[in-house]
Amino acid sequence: MSKLPLGCAIASLIAFAAPAAMAQPAGPGPRDVPARSLPVPSAPSPQVQRLIAAPLRQGWNTPPTTPEGWRALAEAGAAATRAGLPGLRERLKVDVEAAEMGGVKVFRVTPREIRLENRNRLLIHVHGGCYVLNPGEAGLPEAIFMAGFGGYRVISVDYRMPPEAYFPAALDDAMAVWKAALQTTDARNMAIFGSSAGGALTLEMVLRAKAEGLPLPAAIAPGTPMSDVTGVGDSFQTNGLVDNVLVAVDGFCDAATRFYANGHDLRDPLLSPIYGDLCGFPPTILTTGTRDLLLSNTVRMHRALRQAGVEASLQVFEGQSHAHYYRDDSAPESREAFGEIAGFFDRHLGK
Amino acid sequence: MSKLPLGCAIASLIAFAAPAAMAQPAGPGPRDVPARSLPVPSAPSPQVQRLIAAPLRQGWNTPPTTPEGWRALAEAGAAATRAGLPGLRERLKVDVEAAEMGGVKVFRVTPREIRLENRNRLLIHVHGGCYVLNPGEAGLPEAIFMAGFGGYRVISVDYRMPPEAYFPAALDDAMAVWKAALQTTDARNMAIFGSSAGGALTLEMVLRAKAEGLPLPAAIAPGTPMSDVTGVGDSFQTNGLVDNVLVAVDGFCDAATRFYANGHDLRDPLLSPIYGDLCGFPPTILTTGTRDLLLSNTVRMHRALRQAGVEASLQVFEGQSHAHYYRDDSAPESREAFGEIAGFFDRHLGK
Repeated sequence: MSKLPLGCAIASLIAFAAPAAMAQPAGPGPRDVPARSLPVPSAPSPQVQRLIAAPLRQGWNTPPTTPEGWRALAEAGAAATRAGLPGLRERLKVDVEAAEMGGVKVFRVTPREIRLENRNRLLIHVHGGCYVLNPGEAGLPEAIFMAGFGGYRVISVDYRMPPEAYFPAALDDAMAVWKAALQTTDARNMAIFGSSAGGALTLEMVLRAKAEGLPLPAAIAPGTPMSDVTGVGDSFQTNGLVDNVLVAVDGFCDAATRFYANGHDLRDPLLSPIYGDLCGFPPTILTTGTRDLLLSNTVRMHRALRQAGVEASLQVFEGQSHAHYYRDDSAPESREAFGEIAGFFDRHLGK
Repeated sequence: MSKLPLGCAIASLIAFAAPAAMAQPAGPGPRDVPARSLPVPSAPSPQVQRLIAAPLRQGWNTPPTTPEGWRALAEAGAAATRAGLPGLRERLKVDVEAAEMGGVKVFRVTPREIRLENRNRLLIHVHGGCYVLNPGEAGLPEAIFMAGFGGYRVISVDYRMPPEAYFPAALDDAMAVWKAALQTTDARNMAIFGSSAGGALTLEMVLRAKAEGLPLPAAIAPGTPMSDVTGVGDSFQTNGLVDNVLVAVDGFCDAATRFYANGHDLRDPLLSPIYGDLCGFPPTILTTGTRDLLLSNTVRMHRALRQAGVEASLQVFEGQSHAHYYRDDSAPESREAFGEIAGFFDRHLGK
């Protein structure tokens, strides 16, 4: 770790030094944009076009207000997702087995054919769902995409969520799994990935591992991470009511995050990792779409990592809303997104 | 060149193969978005906030309709840009000298201190302006940013434009300069860069060089390229009236492009390079902003290059409209954008 501060110092001195004189702050200058009807773009595949053409998520702006309400919402969504899992597993030739690691519930997600170069490698997956949704097997689709398209063994963490447990329980559980994985696998042969809240948890795990002096993964892939949950980010406005998954600020996802935070400061880097010390982070690949409400969260995170001297790669998919890249396993863009991540891992992981 | 088709074939077979069964095309499903007032985002520097807060470009939707009108518009814009050049040259410590290469007017843009590793390197710059604007010295700001921030010698091509000459005159001139540069400098020590129409010309030069069997540059940096001028691209809609530089489709820039094309098919890869054969392209770094009308043109080009197996890197700046990254040399984001491009070139150019 001794070279990291120097690496960060060099990066900020040479490439990204701020100019000596700062200009005056700008005036308000809001941009008034008239009402519009946005057609479905023609360049994406028919599968992604169908995702884009779908209406806004039902009930996006009427989140539950009670623990029981959240539990019911999570269970309703999970039931729908579970129904699709057998087909997904068969199409991508992936097996799933419930297990436990470090006292935490996990799923072992294993491709029926592990690529030769991946035999000694292991990926840790932290699922999305605004820290509250996608319990149990409902958190698995992204892990199955990665295992199937990339040919990697994956451990998906079924971390505790509200109302069972609050911040930082999800992170605590993920770290317990990371420590358990370190008992059997060299950190240089491991990567961590996840999207949305899972993207944030991926970044938070590295911050926590740094703070605890634990070995870091060889690479990470935070997809459209909730890297800043304080409301900062231009795409919260520009892609508001354009993204049909998260839809807009102050909807269900912000409410869920506050439910998880349970009064904790949202600017804590363990909730908004963009405000953390990113020096020494492993190589990172980030994924988003042009209609993603978290487009700004993603590209700002990319810039922050680059400013810290981290090798960081960004992929942005045409017309996609939040995390559309793991919605349809038949979409060429899904294969492409996970192919890029798998290739990035292959370049950075030991064998 | 013999390994290139194989490289392309491998990339498409392994990472990006389309699934065997294609889904049905999507229905229309347009997204109705109400009128909104977008605040200036808080994360960018004060300098970039000021750019974002500026009103829409005056006269964006009333382009000239006569050759004389275009000439007058180009000259009015050029006069304003020229007024700022002496200060820009002094602040970035760059000298400019008019010259000629291959029978084409150019400017030699030279940092007063050339970095040691750049002594035998040369960059070719093709300016933006929708193929019609920024004649003469008005095309130089981006070249001065690159020379100053990167410490590189730059040749900026003052290519002929309508109404003096039409498609493919700009590309012909740029190629004449490329051929002349090859007489004195190893292609492995050279890169080509430019933004907007200059980003498209950068890509078109590589297509033309491939077709003519000429050596290719070691790297290229097309910024927010006009890679598809057929109207395809979701951000033409989503960022319409959000981008305050290009503003919206069917404005001055599309009119200027048609003026240059002079009846030629806009889908020709020498006008819309995204439709060209990208196999064997050199490593490419692309730059855009979240409010850029050409956000989709840029990220689609990035994906197309990756699909062709090309090493391609993408940087997207928070809140920026079209080519905002070379508007204010005091903005930390400008230094950052050109620092990234310079670092990318440094990794790929010979010495």
